[in-house]
Amino acid sequence: MLKGKIEIQSRISVENLFEEEKGTLGLIYTPGVAYVSKEISNNKELVYDYTSKWNNVAIVCDGTRVLGLGNVGPEAAIPVMEGKAVLFKILGGINAFPLCISTQNKDEIIRFVKEIEPIFGAINIEDIESPKVLEIVEGLQEILSIPIFHDDQHGTAIITLAALINALRLVGKKLDTIKLVIAGAGSAGYGIVKILHAAGCQDIIVTDSKGALSIDRINNNSNNEDMKNQYKLEMSQKTNPRKLTGNLAHIIEGADVFIGVSGKGGILNHQMVQSMSRDAIVFALSNPDPEILPSNALQGGARIVATGRSDFPNQINNAVVFPSVLRVLLDIRAKTLSQDMLVTVANAIAGIVNDTHLREDYIIPKVNDPRILPTVTTALRDAIQKYVTKNGYSVA
Amino acid sequence: MLKGKIEIQSRISVENLFEEEKGTLGLIYTPGVAYVSKEISNNKELVYDYTSKWNNVAIVCDGTRVLGLGNVGPEAAIPVMEGKAVLFKILGGINAFPLCISTQNKDEIIRFVKEIEPIFGAINIEDIESPKVLEIVEGLQEILSIPIFHDDQHGTAIITLAALINALRLVGKKLDTIKLVIAGAGSAGYGIVKILHAAGCQDIIVTDSKGALSIDRINNNSNNEDMKNQYKLEMSQKTNPRKLTGNLAHIIEGADVFIGVSGKGGILNHQMVQSMSRDAIVFALSNPDPEILPSNALQGGARIVATGRSDFPNQINNAVVFPSVLRVLLDIRAKTLSQDMLVTVANAIAGIVNDTHLREDYIIPKVNDPRILPTVTTALRDAIQKYVTKNGYSVA
Repeated sequence: MLKGKIEIQSRISVENLFEEEKGTLGLIYTPGVAYVSKEISNNKELVYDYTSKWNNVAIVCDGTRVLGLGNVGPEAAIPVMEGKAVLFKILGGINAFPLCISTQNKDEIIRFVKEIEPIFGAINIEDIESPKVLEIVEGLQEILSIPIFHDDQHGTAIITLAALINALRLVGKKLDTIKLVIAGAGSAGYGIVKILHAAGCQDIIVTDSKGALSIDRINNNSNNEDMKNQYKLEMSQKTNPRKLTGNLAHIIEGADVFIGVSGKGGILNHQMVQSMSRDAIVFALSNPDPEILPSNALQGGARIVATGRSDFPNQINNAVVFPSVLRVLLDIRAKTLSQDMLVTVANAIAGIVNDTHLREDYIIPKVNDPRILPTVTTALRDAIQKYVTKNGYSVA
Repeated sequence: MLKGKIEIQSRISVENLFEEEKGTLGLIYTPGVAYVSKEISNNKELVYDYTSKWNNVAIVCDGTRVLGLGNVGPEAAIPVMEGKAVLFKILGGINAFPLCISTQNKDEIIRFVKEIEPIFGAINIEDIESPKVLEIVEGLQEILSIPIFHDDQHGTAIITLAALINALRLVGKKLDTIKLVIAGAGSAGYGIVKILHAAGCQDIIVTDSKGALSIDRINNNSNNEDMKNQYKLEMSQKTNPRKLTGNLAHIIEGADVFIGVSGKGGILNHQMVQSMSRDAIVFALSNPDPEILPSNALQGGARIVATGRSDFPNQINNAVVFPSVLRVLLDIRAKTLSQDMLVTVANAIAGIVNDTHLREDYIIPKVNDPRILPTVTTALRDAIQKYVTKNGYSVA
């Protein structure tokens, strides 16, 4: 009965707030506040100087895909989003408020986020079901004047690539020659496909509940739901160059890397891991129940195992990413996050673990590693600057 | 450049948050949080135990009627709402978040508030233009499962009546025999008419920009906007028993009390005050510019003068009311605020100033008087209990 993990605090000293004559109440409240209000009314940019907007992030969630629990509703999403708000504050100095909302309608969610734009400096979209959420994020990117970050897509992609870069360093394989299988074609799978593609990965196969995704499957099933999902089409265009078909147990044979973002616990077993290539890398990222428990993956011969959980080694935790990336987005008010920028940040995070310390159970910095914020800040600011120089795009 | 008056703080100790094995991160975040999430999913009532909802208030504002400044837009409303949030926290221990939104459409605002219901324990509607705001509040009272408070209507009514009760104690007049003039027929005027009527005041006249409101004026002008405003109709039914017509300068003659909630500075002059009854009471409550400056009102012979500003004596400040009333509404999750309850709270607040201390420049407790919270809490809880006993209405 914690009664909540966050609270709103006054930044105003109470010491002389209520003093007669010289009390500050008349400054922060009426009549003094009217001056500030008029100033902002005349020049909206001043809202960044005079209010908390510069540092406010809305965590927007409709409760349709909370962790791996599914559609548990907005109330049940609150504890998760409060946990995120805690990490936003501790690791990024950011005021994040969990807006768990009662509508689960795409257009209403887009309108809702547009409506809260005045008071927030950036938006973090969280735990909304796919493909709806991808359409929401695309729709919002077009109409918002503030940055938007989709943690399940962008955050997961960055931290997964960072972990993969280091795992490959350890086993001596290259990103452009490995065979990689992703279980899960939701927003995390979509984000990972895009970042891996941008980073040079050539042989990716995505599986969903119907087996391997391929351009043939999409084209041959004109009456099924695949056709309605433009993101599955996009993924199929970027993946499965060998045009494999079949279920995960078949597809996984000979793969170098497994990445599980399926939201389904236990879908990988140790026999499947045994069928992978030598020095297999297994990232079973679904929460709270990973696609395979680390002990089973190791039993199956995996050399490097990671999960999304803090109670196993190698936690692939978005919390390494979202506080620092949002810190930069708020600070420079950048509205575009290109795949190049995401790859740059992933490389920077991977680089925090140096050769001396890199080992099978330490491929990714701990979430509280103090080097993360300065490292990500420098890398992302540089990447944005390059983008601006190249595209003549103004960030603020 | 204060950069905001509020911030979001973590309530989680950082001390052992990130410790290996025993760290609390695994409890407040994945995997531990999944347990709490499932519990709430199975029993939504638990959201009050496991999250901050029990203590969260949304300050919802569209920027259409900020102080007396008019429609300055949502961004310019933020400094005012942050000031309110500071007072909510310091005086009521409440987490209030300022949701200044970009839509100014009635139905969209109603939908917006319904959408944020999962994460808030109560709603405070603020600085939205009339009569739209009155329709919004009525609409929300029907569809929300959490309490709603309209500070410009309910808060202003309570504190104004409290101040009036004490002013009348000083000058030895009675509420049921005084002649009272209200300038302003917006939500504050509407709230004050309703509470004064419930408290027994017989002779109230409301003026708007077209002069005295009366049932005849409403009925004789079938093509004007009065007809479309059901609240002006309702006010005209409760007021102007002598069926006076004319502008404020005429109506004010012989009045015992003037209450200004017009949003227009300077509409009362000292000659008008001179035409009032002996021991005139002048409450010029518009912010930041009152209907008359205290010095002018005193020059015109007023005996008791109050404003809405903290830099003059007798500040009639809603901040005496909203933190304590919302504290009670959150704590007992009462969804009905009857006029009887509002009158009870007004009497309780008035009673804080005892006969020994009551004088012309001290008719209302200071906003930081520590007796306010316990006094309002006891009075409002009792009033709600009476209401429940009488109406068989369950509050939670």
